[in-house]
Amino acid sequence: MFKHVKDMEYTVHVDRPDPRFAVLLLEQFGGGNGELKAAMQYFSQSLGCNDPKIRDLLQDIAAEELSHLEMVGEALAMLIGGVDTVPRDFAANHMALLGGGPLLINSGGEPWTANYVNSNGDIYTDLSSNAGAELRAKLIYERLLQQTDDAGVKDMIRFLLSREESHNFSFMQAIKTLKGTGVNKDFRDSDFSKKYMNMSTGQGDSRGPWNQGSGTSYESDPNLRYGGP
Amino acid sequence: MFKHVKDMEYTVHVDRPDPRFAVLLLEQFGGGNGELKAAMQYFSQSLGCNDPKIRDLLQDIAAEELSHLEMVGEALAMLIGGVDTVPRDFAANHMALLGGGPLLINSGGEPWTANYVNSNGDIYTDLSSNAGAELRAKLIYERLLQQTDDAGVKDMIRFLLSREESHNFSFMQAIKTLKGTGVNKDFRDSDFSKKYMNMSTGQGDSRGPWNQGSGTSYESDPNLRYGGP
Amino acid sequence: MFKHVKDMEYTVHVDRPDPRFAVLLLEQFGGGNGELKAAMQYFSQSLGCNDPKIRDLLQDIAAEELSHLEMVGEALAMLIGGVDTVPRDFAANHMALLGGGPLLINSGGEPWTANYVNSNGDIYTDLSSNAGAELRAKLIYERLLQQTDDAGVKDMIRFLLSREESHNFSFMQAIKTLKGTGVNKDFRDSDFSKKYMNMSTGQGDSRGPWNQGSGTSYESDPNLRYGGP
Amino acid sequence: MFKHVKDMEYTVHVDRPDPRFAVLLLEQFGGGNGELKAAMQYFSQSLGCNDPKIRDLLQDIAAEELSHLEMVGEALAMLIGGVDTVPRDFAANHMALLGGGPLLINSGGEPWTANYVNSNGDIYTDLSSNAGAELRAKLIYERLLQQTDDAGVKDMIRFLLSREESHNFSFMQAIKTLKGTGVNKDFRDSDFSKKYMNMSTGQGDSRGPWNQGSGTSYESDPNLRYGGP
Amino acid sequence: MFKHVKDMEYTVHVDRPDPRFAVLLLEQFGGGNGELKAAMQYFSQSLGCNDPKIRDLLQDIAAEELSHLEMVGEALAMLIGGVDTVPRDFAANHMALLGGGPLLINSGGEPWTANYVNSNGDIYTDLSSNAGAELRAKLIYERLLQQTDDAGVKDMIRFLLSREESHNFSFMQAIKTLKGTGVNKDFRDSDFSKKYMNMSTGQGDSRGPWNQGSGTSYESDPNLRYGGP
Amino acid sequence: MFKHVKDMEYTVHVDRPDPRFAVLLLEQFGGGNGELKAAMQYFSQSLGCNDPKIRDLLQDIAAEELSHLEMVGEALAMLIGGVDTVPRDFAANHMALLGGGPLLINSGGEPWTANYVNSNGDIYTDLSSNAGAELRAKLIYERLLQQTDDAGVKDMIRFLLSREESHNFSFMQAIKTLKGTGVNKDFRDSDFSKKYMNMSTGQGDSRGPWNQGSGTSYESDPNLRYGGP
Ligand SMILES: [Ca+2]
Ligand SMILES: [Ca+2]
Ligand SMILES: [Ca+2]
Ligand SMILES: [Ca+2]
Ligand SMILES: [Ca+2]
Ligand SMILES: [Ca+2]
Repeated sequence: MFKHVKDMEYTVHVDRPDPRFAVLLLEQFGGGNGELKAAMQYFSQSLGCNDPKIRDLLQDIAAEELSHLEMVGEALAMLIGGVDTVPRDFAANHMALLGGGPLLINSGGEPWTANYVNSNGDIYTDLSSNAGAELRAKLIYERLLQQTDDAGVKDMIRFLLSREESHNFSFMQAIKTLKGTGVNKDFRDSDFSKKYMNMSTGQGDSRGPWNQGSGTSYESDPNLRYGGP
Repeated sequence: MFKHVKDMEYTVHVDRPDPRFAVLLLEQFGGGNGELKAAMQYFSQSLGCNDPKIRDLLQDIAAEELSHLEMVGEALAMLIGGVDTVPRDFAANHMALLGGGPLLINSGGEPWTANYVNSNGDIYTDLSSNAGAELRAKLIYERLLQQTDDAGVKDMIRFLLSREESHNFSFMQAIKTLKGTGVNKDFRDSDFSKKYMNMSTGQGDSRGPWNQGSGTSYESDPNLRYGGP
Repeated sequence: MFKHVKDMEYTVHVDRPDPRFAVLLLEQFGGGNGELKAAMQYFSQSLGCNDPKIRDLLQDIAAEELSHLEMVGEALAMLIGGVDTVPRDFAANHMALLGGGPLLINSGGEPWTANYVNSNGDIYTDLSSNAGAELRAKLIYERLLQQTDDAGVKDMIRFLLSREESHNFSFMQAIKTLKGTGVNKDFRDSDFSKKYMNMSTGQGDSRGPWNQGSGTSYESDPNLRYGGP
Repeated sequence: MFKHVKDMEYTVHVDRPDPRFAVLLLEQFGGGNGELKAAMQYFSQSLGCNDPKIRDLLQDIAAEELSHLEMVGEALAMLIGGVDTVPRDFAANHMALLGGGPLLINSGGEPWTANYVNSNGDIYTDLSSNAGAELRAKLIYERLLQQTDDAGVKDMIRFLLSREESHNFSFMQAIKTLKGTGVNKDFRDSDFSKKYMNMSTGQGDSRGPWNQGSGTSYESDPNLRYGGP
Repeated sequence: MFKHVKDMEYTVHVDRPDPRFAVLLLEQFGGGNGELKAAMQYFSQSLGCNDPKIRDLLQDIAAEELSHLEMVGEALAMLIGGVDTVPRDFAANHMALLGGGPLLINSGGEPWTANYVNSNGDIYTDLSSNAGAELRAKLIYERLLQQTDDAGVKDMIRFLLSREESHNFSFMQAIKTLKGTGVNKDFRDSDFSKKYMNMSTGQGDSRGPWNQGSGTSYESDPNLRYGGP
Repeated sequence: MFKHVKDMEYTVHVDRPDPRFAVLLLEQFGGGNGELKAAMQYFSQSLGCNDPKIRDLLQDIAAEELSHLEMVGEALAMLIGGVDTVPRDFAANHMALLGGGPLLINSGGEPWTANYVNSNGDIYTDLSSNAGAELRAKLIYERLLQQTDDAGVKDMIRFLLSREESHNFSFMQAIKTLKGTGVNKDFRDSDFSKKYMNMSTGQGDSRGPWNQGSGTSYESDPNLRYGGP
């Protein structure tokens, strides 16, 4: 079960209201790489996960992401201020009309959707989805850091950014323990899995470890080979 | 902050896998009147709520709804069973392909969206939204009860259904303490707020306390009066 | 059947174009608490409603909400002005590109969706949903009133705001006639429906009529009781 | 303003409940080529239309489409029957849970969205959008006709299908009166507007009036000409 | 199969970064009448098209629309500039946070959705949908032309605008070859398909070729005739 | 530019129509881990990518994914068969009504949305997103393989499945060349980035390389430390 404790995971300070930055910060409240997405992704995955250790890992991080959602939400409430303080010339219409608390929308006004969640029932796959998701979350926080001078907000963002790194690391470590299982079983053991199809041609064609070496064969004009009638 | 405790709020038993009923039950996992909607609605409202007592009420129930989400999710995982157990002739395609855990979709396959959440920053309004939301949730559980014979599942649904009644009661009690505040201030004190416009006419036109008495005036042909050029 | 009469329900005047306010007003044209939502909610409910008196109530108000949609739409067309009058430095991109008439989007650019509509086939439930919906609509109009100085627009908004109050009153009156029916039957007659679960704890824990009195029992640490293995 | 008259535009008879067909018929209630889409498309267009004659045309047909929405909705309510009559082995889960009245969803469970509406503020363009929209609506009715043996339902569908033809004809006639205006002004008077780019090549390359004659020049290998660096 | 050639269909020049205009131009990248919509509409239609000549037409234009998507995308990347160059006071929040490349969203921040695609499996219908779609695309380009002074961007837009005219012309020519087939078979041969229902009445009622002549009968008060009980 | 070649990348054979399996296969045509998602993700990323070698990699694979979209689409058209062949008792309503060609929807009827696309403008991040995306795509193909006995379809799926492995490998190889750049720069160099927060407690708490070793410190009761007032 989930229990709520009135103290936050990490105390949030905001120096002064800043509706403009609040709009940007919404990206991590109701956006595609935000805290709700992370919480729901790991929580959904945990329900179908039969490995008790990985299940605990997913649940630990899911509960933490919910606690981050709360931190970001509290910061948003402070940054938005009262409905009356939003000036008439402010571009964020939603906030002027619906304010009083943050909405589960992204910085462009799009409501949160479960389409953001990747939960597929194979642990190796799920953890790989999670590793990428944490990098995207960190990247958004890095860009948010460039958009504010509020010391309290910066401190909160640095905390959250560090936590994404920590989660990425944990997921990568867990993946290592699962090599050769699930979707990773018998990986790249067929002919077509070792070919590189050069489907985009012209000035800029390049070679690198992704299309040469490691048993990779390079097909420079793929359709002449396999797509005839 | 949110903390997760491995025990559930109320222990869930499922007698046997039943993918057909799992599809129906998804309505309360990722549907418009389901547990995530309730949790996110009350949680969002609490962030902008300056009345500490109502804030506690919202947070108590938000945390409980998250715990219900977990109960429903655990039941779904048991009802779905392994991916391999979903028969080929089963109509719920999503479940056969993506299974292993429940998705945040409704019983028709539509992903959860924050459009379901009503959080508007006026306490009186928000609590009224919540009272209606709890009735809808209860109604869905009543219908789900008719669709299964599994004793364990029925027991869980009865628990959840009772909790919705309890929440509806709490919200109604709290509304009473707020009469005459916020959106309820100076309510129905203008002329137009006391008129009833008979915009649908013919066999079936009816009168009742909603269009007579209590100072209500009945306009039988509204556009002749106020919409002239 | 629906018939359109060229006169509006209430004549709309707009003093001068104001694209900025038009963007805000879109919230009531294509937004989640706007006029189309109200019209479609009551219209959908009426189709499944077997009580002829409530059916008439729903149809009266549905037709009026469509007429409000028209009023808001006409106001929007006047506020937007011609496509060429939208200045290049205007933030509302959609309006500059697609203008000429209002779109069914909210003030943040999100298209109207039937996810906004609550129609569940139980009259008591439906009317409760409607009572809350009218309060939300009124609240948005109150905030819109603060965002314009145009006398004609203010007059229209005050009319519409009063009508939401009237509808809320009618729905509340109708609910009273249905006590003890549908989802309200045998309400709160089980043990669990009389408990309050204190799921959020710490500084701020509060007591009030929502968690004491009226036969309510207060569970201060719920999971120790019902969630054991 | 919109007024509702209790009589329908055309009386609907349904011989017996048929939830399976009801699911299909939802396509014309809440689907992308259904009656609400048509009504909202013509209504939105009319608000920005400064040609009074075309405005009347758009309003006449918008009001009729709303009346068709009602006919389809009434038929759906009869086809669905009571919630209790939906058998447990029925594939349409949404209907079993949420029934009592039709939802604004399509036959696949997707909620109606304003993304279906094409309203762009140029009369010539809008009427062309409408002409195509009516053909799509007719096509869906033709396919629905093949999926039912209910004489009453077939009679209703034939009526609606005929009305789509009528609307298509009216829009086509109106377009003729607007030749050379709006987006049709100076049409196809540049070089590039007279070229045909053969971007898909191989067995199947064809010639026809769309890429020869009428001043059209045929570019057999387009990127060699205009896309160099 | 699709092959990518590094040269563009038509070389794109952008004189200088202009994030404001980039937001507007997104309408044709990820918007409802943009290049991806066109490409996916014609591509989907081609898959179900059994007429080899029309299939080639659809594939030629689908591939060209993908090449236009690339042109618009390259222009967007140049207009956006680096993430660091987006000023803090810029209204387009999404771009400041997520930039580095264009997103598949419209100018209002709404993500692209397949709801924009009309593909219905009847060639006559599909081509009519396409003719209207090309006009809408052209109209958006005309409005974009008014919103920039960048010579390079204007040149690109004029090219794309001309191509929409060319495609509209091709589709219209192809439709002519299909008269009397598919959905156009036995068109307007029933009584109801020749009536005009005057559903919107009052000052503004008009007559024109759309409701008189060509065998059309005008019903001035439709519900008195067919909707009785 | 994109050019279409009439031959497919790999010839597709389908032994006989199978609408049931077609519904499942839609997951890879218009679903969240399908071919369009992959194509649009890599294509969008390439537009903002300033590293010419990685740009070529992204464009090669984007063009191949479009070619896979075509293969899946052609298979779908064959599996669906004519509209008339879809039996009345078939659960996939959309297909019966709209058939003639595949729609860009997933196996649950949800339309494709750009919310599926992860393109964030940091190469390291983007490639990590891609590596996870390819695993998810492979997983769906593995499950599809279990749902059909058609030899031709199985052959196509095995080809596509192998190609996902190949793409995953290429992306992983490319990531290695970018270590320490972009979002990976100064990774995990702060205190909080090395902590593990035990937010989910009780029976099941586990330790592993994800929360011990490698400099990780384990916080067993996090909020006592950083969240005080
Ligand atoms: Ca290449
Ligand atoms: Ca009435
Ligand atoms: Ca409490
Ligand atoms: Ca060709
Ligand atoms: Ca008229
Ligand atoms: Ca733990």
